[in-house]
Amino acid sequence: MTLSKRLAEYVCQTSFEDLPEHVVEFTKICILDWYGSAIAGKDMPPIQAVKELVEEWGGHEQASLVTGGKSSLGNAVLVNAASSHIVELDDIHKSSIIHAGTVVIPAAVAAAEAYDLSGKELITAVAVGYEVCYRIGEAVSPSHYYFWHNTATCGTFGSAAAVAKLVNLNVEQTMHALGNAGSQAAGLWEFIEDGANTKQLHTAKAAYNGTLAALLAKKNFTGATKILEGKRGFFEAMAESADPSKITKNLGHEWKIIENSFKIHASCRHTHPAIDCILDIMNDHSIAYQQIDRITIKTYQTVLNITDKPNPDSIYACKFSSQFCAALAAVKGSASLRDFTTESLQDSEILNLMEKVDVVVDSYYEEAYPEKWGAKVEIALSNGKIFEQATDYPKGDPEKMATKEELIQKFIMMTAEKLEHPEAEVEAIFKLDSISTREWLRKQEISRLQQ
Amino acid sequence: MTLSKRLAEYVCQTSFEDLPEHVVEFTKICILDWYGSAIAGKDMPPIQAVKELVEEWGGHEQASLVTGGKSSLGNAVLVNAASSHIVELDDIHKSSIIHAGTVVIPAAVAAAEAYDLSGKELITAVAVGYEVCYRIGEAVSPSHYYFWHNTATCGTFGSAAAVAKLVNLNVEQTMHALGNAGSQAAGLWEFIEDGANTKQLHTAKAAYNGTLAALLAKKNFTGATKILEGKRGFFEAMAESADPSKITKNLGHEWKIIENSFKIHASCRHTHPAIDCILDIMNDHSIAYQQIDRITIKTYQTVLNITDKPNPDSIYACKFSSQFCAALAAVKGSASLRDFTTESLQDSEILNLMEKVDVVVDSYYEEAYPEKWGAKVEIALSNGKIFEQATDYPKGDPEKMATKEELIQKFIMMTAEKLEHPEAEVEAIFKLDSISTREWLRKQEISRLQQ
Repeated sequence: MTLSKRLAEYVCQTSFEDLPEHVVEFTKICILDWYGSAIAGKDMPPIQAVKELVEEWGGHEQASLVTGGKSSLGNAVLVNAASSHIVELDDIHKSSIIHAGTVVIPAAVAAAEAYDLSGKELITAVAVGYEVCYRIGEAVSPSHYYFWHNTATCGTFGSAAAVAKLVNLNVEQTMHALGNAGSQAAGLWEFIEDGANTKQLHTAKAAYNGTLAALLAKKNFTGATKILEGKRGFFEAMAESADPSKITKNLGHEWKIIENSFKIHASCRHTHPAIDCILDIMNDHSIAYQQIDRITIKTYQTVLNITDKPNPDSIYACKFSSQFCAALAAVKGSASLRDFTTESLQDSEILNLMEKVDVVVDSYYEEAYPEKWGAKVEIALSNGKIFEQATDYPKGDPEKMATKEELIQKFIMMTAEKLEHPEAEVEAIFKLDSISTREWLRKQEISRLQQ
Repeated sequence: MTLSKRLAEYVCQTSFEDLPEHVVEFTKICILDWYGSAIAGKDMPPIQAVKELVEEWGGHEQASLVTGGKSSLGNAVLVNAASSHIVELDDIHKSSIIHAGTVVIPAAVAAAEAYDLSGKELITAVAVGYEVCYRIGEAVSPSHYYFWHNTATCGTFGSAAAVAKLVNLNVEQTMHALGNAGSQAAGLWEFIEDGANTKQLHTAKAAYNGTLAALLAKKNFTGATKILEGKRGFFEAMAESADPSKITKNLGHEWKIIENSFKIHASCRHTHPAIDCILDIMNDHSIAYQQIDRITIKTYQTVLNITDKPNPDSIYACKFSSQFCAALAAVKGSASLRDFTTESLQDSEILNLMEKVDVVVDSYYEEAYPEKWGAKVEIALSNGKIFEQATDYPKGDPEKMATKEELIQKFIMMTAEKLEHPEAEVEAIFKLDSISTREWLRKQEISRLQQ
C-alpha cells in the first residue's frame, strides 16, 4: 500500500466521534488563534493587494473574506490564508516546522462555509489536515527545510486533506488529491534574503493549491499514487533524507495537533527562545538596557539561516532579525504586535543595541533541533557582570504551554482594533461543536468594524 | 546586477519594434499551434473538471474560456492552459525541454483580452515569455528535468514575464514578479508513473501562478531579487548543476522562439524520433507490420525515464509509452490524434507488437541530448532481414522544420470537429499584428461549434 493510500484511508475513516474531547477543545483554540492572526493582518498592504486582485477577478459569494464581503471559495482561501501569516503570530509545530493554522484552517473554514457544513465537520477536517501535514513535515525535516518553507510545501498536503475530508472524497479520490497537492508543492526560502512579501503568497497558495487538488479530485481528476515515496516524488526531489515511518507510526492513535505551539511574540518563531531568555534576564536582575555591552545568543543553525539579519530594512524584515528582536525585547521589555512599529525601526536605542548582538551556533541546541527549539543567552554588562539564561523551549510550546486564558487575551489584543466584539467571536468559536460554520461566520460579519 | 534584474530589464525594454519580421511571423504560428491544441483538448474529462470548478467559483467576464463563455482572468488562464497540453500536440523547445506555448500563451492571451491590448502587444509578450523561460530551462537542463517538469517549473517564469510585459510592469516590479514566479514553481514527474491528469494541472498552474505573480507585482507585492542564483533559490534547490551564463548570453540579440519544435505525432515528444524512423523504414521498404519480429529503439536515457512503459492502461498513458507508440506507428502507419483511440488501446495487433519493442540507451544519443533528441531504430523481420533508420531530430524540429502550410493543416485537422470555420481562425491569427486581441477572440466565439 502506498503512503498516499494509507493517508487517504486515515482521512476518510476519521470522524468527529474519533476525536477525544481534549483534541476537540485544542482544535477550537487553534481556530481561534488562526482567526486572530487573520483579522490582525487583514489591512496590511500585501494582503490588500491580494484582496484587490480577487475583487477584480470576482466570483460567486461562496465564502467570507476576512477583509469583508464574500467571494468564490478559491478567492476566499487566497485572501484568508495570506492574511493569517503576516503578523507572525500564528501557530507552529516544532518537529515538522510547519505553521499549519495559516494553511489548513483558511482552506477548511472557506470550504465548510461554501458547502454549509457543521462546526463538527470543520473541527474534524482541521484536526485531520494538521495530522497529515505534520507527519509529512516530520518525515522530511530537517533537510527539506534548508531550501523549502515547510509551511508552504508540506502545508499543501494539509489543506488538501482537510478539504478532502469536508467534501467527503472516497479513498481513491483522496489519494489523487494528495498526489496533486504534492505536485503543486512549492515555496523557496530565498525571499527571506529580501524580507519580501512572498511568505504571504506561500501560505495563500499552499491553502489554495490543496483546496484545488481536493476539489478537482471530487471531479475524478487523478494524481500520482506515490507522490511521497515515488522515485520522482516529494521525498526524493525535495529532501536530502526522509523517514517514511513518521507518516504511519501511530497514525489514527494520536493527535499531533496537541503538540502545537502558540506564539506570544510577534516575530519568527526562531527568534523566540532568545527573546524569552532576554526578557527573563532583564526582569530577574532588573537590568536597564543602557547597561548592556554584549548579547550573545547560542542556538541551532537554522536560527542563523533564517534570522541572522543584522540590517533589516522593513518592519516585516525585523521579525526575521534575531539582532533586532533581541534589541527590541531588551529596550521595550516585550516583542508584541504593538512593538513592531516604524518608530521601533528608527529607534536609535534599538539600532545601537542591535550592533551588540551576536548569534552563534551551539552544538547542544543544534543536536536537539528540531525536537527542541532552544537557546542560551549571555548578557554582558559594561561593568563586567555576565548573566546567563537558557531554555529548551520557547514560551507557548506544549512543554511551556500558554493557558487558554492567555490565548484568549492574545486574540482580544490582536483583534481589538478590528472587531467590535472580540469576546463574542471567542464564544462562537468555542461553541463550534454545536453550531454550523456559517452561524459562526455570520457573527463575524456583524462584529467586523469598518475601517 | 542580479539575474532577475537583468531579465526584468530585458522584459521592460523590449518592444514590438524590436522583433524582426520573421520572429513576428513565427510567433503567430506558435499562437496558432497553441490555439489548435487548446481547442482540440477542451472537451476531454480532465479539462471539463477544471471548467466545472471555475464555473462553480464564478468570476467577472474578463477573458474567454476555450470551453466557451467568459470568466475571470485567473479562471480563463487555468482552463485554457489545462486544455492546450492534453492532446500532446503542443510545441516543444529541445534545449530547455519546455512546452512554452501551453503555459505562456494562455496567460498572455487572457491578459491581453482582459486589458484590451493589441495583437502587437500580445505577440511581443509571447516572444518575451518564451525567451525568459527557455533561457531558464537551458540553464538548469538536463539535471532539473529528472525530478521536475520544466514546462511547469520554468514555464512559470515565462507566464510571469509575458503578463509583466502586458501590464507594463517597471523593472522593479518585473523582478518581484519573477521572484514570486520562482517561489511558486512546482511540478514533479512522479505522476507519469500513473499516467495521471496532473500534467494538465501543471500547465494550468504554471500559467496561473506566473499570471498571479505579475498581477500582484503590479500592486507592488514584492518577491525575492535573487530567485535564480540565490543560495536558497531555484538553481540551488532544484538542479544538480546550473549554468547561469545561459540566462544572459546574447539576451536581446536573438530570439529563441524560432528554435521551437512543432509536434506532428500526438504523443510525448520523446517518442517521436523512433516513430519517425519506424514510419520511414515501413514506407521505404514496404514492410507489413505482420512481418516484424523485433523493434529495437536505441536512444537517450530520458526516453526511458519518461516513456519506457510497456503496459499503458489509458489512451493518455499510451502517449507516454514508447512501446505503444512504436507499435501504433507500425500498425496504423501514423500516430496522429485520430490514432490514439480506445480501439487502438484494445487492438490485439498493436498489443502483440508492443511486446516486441525494446528501448535501450545508446551513448551517442545520450551524449547529444538535449541539443539533439535522436534515435536509431532497428526492425528485424521474421525472415531474418534487418532494417535500420536513424535521426538526430524528430520531424517538426527547426532542423527538420514543418512548413507553415503543414502547420495550418495540422490546425485544421485538430479543430475541424470543434470550429465551424477553422480557416477564418487561421486568417485572424495571421492578422494579429493589425487587430486587437479582442477582435481575434470575438471571431473565435462565433466560430465555435456547440457540442
